[in-house]
Amino acid sequence: MSGLVSLVGAGPGDPDLLTRRAAQRLAEADLVLYDALVDPAVLELAGQAQRFYVGKRAGRHHVTQEQIHRILVRAAQRGQRVVRLKGGDPFVFGRGGEEALALAEAGIPFEVVPGISSSVAAPALAGIPVTHRGMSTGFVVVSGHADEAWQPALDSLAPGAVTVVVLMGLAHRGAIAARLLGRGWSAQTPSAIVWAASRAEGSTWRGTLAELAAASPSTESADSPGTIVVGAVVSLAEALAPAAARPITAAGGSR
Amino acid sequence: MSGLVSLVGAGPGDPDLLTRRAAQRLAEADLVLYDALVDPAVLELAGQAQRFYVGKRAGRHHVTQEQIHRILVRAAQRGQRVVRLKGGDPFVFGRGGEEALALAEAGIPFEVVPGISSSVAAPALAGIPVTHRGMSTGFVVVSGHADEAWQPALDSLAPGAVTVVVLMGLAHRGAIAARLLGRGWSAQTPSAIVWAASRAEGSTWRGTLAELAAASPSTESADSPGTIVVGAVVSLAEALAPAAARPITAAGGSR
Repeated sequence: MSGLVSLVGAGPGDPDLLTRRAAQRLAEADLVLYDALVDPAVLELAGQAQRFYVGKRAGRHHVTQEQIHRILVRAAQRGQRVVRLKGGDPFVFGRGGEEALALAEAGIPFEVVPGISSSVAAPALAGIPVTHRGMSTGFVVVSGHADEAWQPALDSLAPGAVTVVVLMGLAHRGAIAARLLGRGWSAQTPSAIVWAASRAEGSTWRGTLAELAAASPSTESADSPGTIVVGAVVSLAEALAPAAARPITAAGGSR
Repeated sequence: MSGLVSLVGAGPGDPDLLTRRAAQRLAEADLVLYDALVDPAVLELAGQAQRFYVGKRAGRHHVTQEQIHRILVRAAQRGQRVVRLKGGDPFVFGRGGEEALALAEAGIPFEVVPGISSSVAAPALAGIPVTHRGMSTGFVVVSGHADEAWQPALDSLAPGAVTVVVLMGLAHRGAIAARLLGRGWSAQTPSAIVWAASRAEGSTWRGTLAELAAASPSTESADSPGTIVVGAVVSLAEALAPAAARPITAAGGSR
């Protein structure tokens, strides 16, 4: 008898932004493999499952991608219910596709449980709609972790054509801003960085594309992942951020 | 005393793909305003709330955007807990930004509860990761409902630079494909349409960009919303779709 591997999106951090299916799979899991971007509060939903950290430590993978594949396959072959838990959505820069291919090749039953991607939710929780009538008819999402990941995609865009969202690009924010400016984007294009969206330590910086390189977070969120947003829609946060950022208590929420 | 308006994303359809916070807000709501894209099974979670349909009927809005704003404001002023429920995510082509601005202007407490956007989840549930190492380092999402919405964004893209996802573009799939081909995209670019992702009546078409104009759904999903995906990553569905599309029973799931 074979188990099941669920490739599960953990969303941006707040456990209330998990899907109902993700919470159910965690509660039923025998084994959970999780990454650095998964919030500890989400892991607490894993009930009795064995938990195994397979993320990066100090910039190095201490478990290789091939080892992750082997662990997933063997656990399923033992009949276990396995949750492979990834920050955000498993198919947005999560190497979920590679893991799904390895499982398919080994004949292991698996499913994909989409998660709330920070590409949309981080801006939203900072009062920035990625699309807005009369301002932006679309958005592009790129990974900023390496030059070859973001340069071809951003180079291909006409200045201001769509909202630009960069995940995992904090370290290269200067280079990203310089590249866009060099391609003809206006120095005045409203820009933002959202750190630790949905978490208590979260903070937002807003300014212009010319100022993006020098943006810095609050002390509390300095080590948190950040989402870069560039485009006219960022200006909407002036009206929307106070409400979007306010902790909700009126309806019993926890944000 | 003022109530609270929650702008809530209903996700792609399956109620198990709602967030835990969305389900909680629905259970506690006094009033729910919902659109055509919201699945009836999601609405059933609304408990005792009054439900009010404000979507389009036969192509016409029977309730105007301004009327929606007034209903939201007045209900909150009466102290009600109001859920404004939108298919997918409220800030991805949902006019959520306009509603948030109207609420902010009227001084009404509101919050945004992000939802699973079909832009990522519809491809995922058909076995298509929108990003994949060595194939796609990003994706662009546009609305296909009107030429002026998708043309500027798609025209600005270098051919093949990122995965293209078009929401609400089924009626214009021929024009969209012709435009991309005219801009230099390869006729052989793998392409897909995913109808009714996450629902029992869902179906997927896969082919090339040259064939996209003639794509047609199964009879069951002919009236369903569809998501267009164009890019090399569509080819991964050949290996991943059988598993991704298989109804999961091993772990008690409902898909």
